[in-house]
Amino acid sequence: MTSPMFEKIALVGIGLIGSSLARVIRREGLARHVSISTRSAATLARAEELGLGDGYSTDAREAVRDADLVIISVPVGSSGAVAEEIAPALKPGAILTDVGSTKASVIAQMQPYVPEGVHFIPGHPLAGTEKSGPDAGFADLFDNRWCIFTPLPDTDPDALERLSEFWRRCGANIDTMDPQHHDMTLAIVSHLPHIIAYNIVGTADDLQSVTKSEVIKYSASGFRDFTRLAASDPTMWRDVCLHNKDAILEMLARFSEDLASLQRAIRWGDGEKLFDLFTRTRAVRRSIIEAGQDIDVPDFGRQAVEHPAKG
Amino acid sequence: MTSPMFEKIALVGIGLIGSSLARVIRREGLARHVSISTRSAATLARAEELGLGDGYSTDAREAVRDADLVIISVPVGSSGAVAEEIAPALKPGAILTDVGSTKASVIAQMQPYVPEGVHFIPGHPLAGTEKSGPDAGFADLFDNRWCIFTPLPDTDPDALERLSEFWRRCGANIDTMDPQHHDMTLAIVSHLPHIIAYNIVGTADDLQSVTKSEVIKYSASGFRDFTRLAASDPTMWRDVCLHNKDAILEMLARFSEDLASLQRAIRWGDGEKLFDLFTRTRAVRRSIIEAGQDIDVPDFGRQAVEHPAKG
Repeated sequence: MTSPMFEKIALVGIGLIGSSLARVIRREGLARHVSISTRSAATLARAEELGLGDGYSTDAREAVRDADLVIISVPVGSSGAVAEEIAPALKPGAILTDVGSTKASVIAQMQPYVPEGVHFIPGHPLAGTEKSGPDAGFADLFDNRWCIFTPLPDTDPDALERLSEFWRRCGANIDTMDPQHHDMTLAIVSHLPHIIAYNIVGTADDLQSVTKSEVIKYSASGFRDFTRLAASDPTMWRDVCLHNKDAILEMLARFSEDLASLQRAIRWGDGEKLFDLFTRTRAVRRSIIEAGQDIDVPDFGRQAVEHPAKG
Repeated sequence: MTSPMFEKIALVGIGLIGSSLARVIRREGLARHVSISTRSAATLARAEELGLGDGYSTDAREAVRDADLVIISVPVGSSGAVAEEIAPALKPGAILTDVGSTKASVIAQMQPYVPEGVHFIPGHPLAGTEKSGPDAGFADLFDNRWCIFTPLPDTDPDALERLSEFWRRCGANIDTMDPQHHDMTLAIVSHLPHIIAYNIVGTADDLQSVTKSEVIKYSASGFRDFTRLAASDPTMWRDVCLHNKDAILEMLARFSEDLASLQRAIRWGDGEKLFDLFTRTRAVRRSIIEAGQDIDVPDFGRQAVEHPAKG
């Protein structure tokens, strides 16, 4: 093993992302000491049981003391409070980063607390599953996924390169963009899909003409695909909605406009319009597969599930 | 091998469903002779290359002659024309069924042409992938999936039982319901999800603030899930939209109402409402997994894809 990139890394928040980081840091030998902090004593105890780090504390300020790299992996609505709490203990020269799904809001919340001499570099690894908590993480999570940085005007290039190298060693590819563009991009590729998925699952759950058990029973005909995204962490997604409001409302407006137009085509029997849209969207799928962003296996390569009725 | 259930089965339409039937009929030895018909000479030639049947014809009327079981697997909008074409050649006592995703419309289109003495039993196997054509089929497609019949008031119970047994041997579980309830149920579990998926992919494809290549590149953060359904056969889905209009418009209205309410919660920062919805939908996912209708593996168990940028 080459010498570790960092003497001490502090992970504040140990859910799906934090615990995946802990695992890949260990596997790749990226730090001599990993310090883990989370507010919930139960979650912290679980992290310790899993052996995710070298030190554990419910006190984030204690955990970040002397750390060369501090990674905040909490719901974006808590970013400001965490920054305020840890600020007095941050070591001069340390890199402070986060993994939040919205960037303008996180910057606005955290930057005021960042002490002189600490390198604050907002980041966002585009990785995750519908599972949450320290048990859900795995070391491969970031493999071939994008990590986007939204550096501030005065970001130190050496610190940025060091953090980039860290993420590359975690498996990720690096992109940088400005926070506004990040938030607009994520609103369409991630936030809108999750919101739509939550919404359609809610609509189906409310029906009375079709029973809940029928919705469940016949879900494999399309509906179940949406339930995966709609099973994502409620706190995380509540915070995303509250902290990327403008971009999300913009995308929702476009989506609803398009849906009204599609609905009108259905009402008036405009088959040509329907056919054109359905053909165009097929091409998008093809591009995603060609770009290596999804597998070209029918039904996501799902393995067959045993049906209970079958016995 | 026990003796085949049917002397001759005719498959009219040899796409994903028709060709999967051909394969499972062969594997299970369900017919002595399988006759295949499709309008496209190229598709028929491909079916013959694949060795899917024992006889091939672009003339559906020829194909169904002397058949004991005739299965129509065409886009629902073509059901009436096919029924009119084959009617004169249908054998008395034969079972005529279909696999269409809408049932009231298929019944209205086909029933007028069904000759006295032929058992017309509308059916719908809830199975499929986003792929289409004779190459896309596979013999396991119907394993543990539901096949719904919407029998007519005068349906012969013996014929219904014989067709049920056929589908059970193809791997499916059987349900029966009335056509209106089928159409309402499928509108929420299948048609709405597909329409919403097509719509969101269209919205993303139209954006200018975020480029197409960014949408593709970052699609793994949620968006790509929708592109699978939105890659389904355009002709099939155009016809579904045109032939289950009332139920689809009803579900679209409910979906849009709910989305407006969710949008309002985002605009006004109503975190509690968001959190409640996101928690409720998570429970639906759990029920689907408990019912054996999806696998409890993160990210549908997708295998990692190599990222081109990674080299």
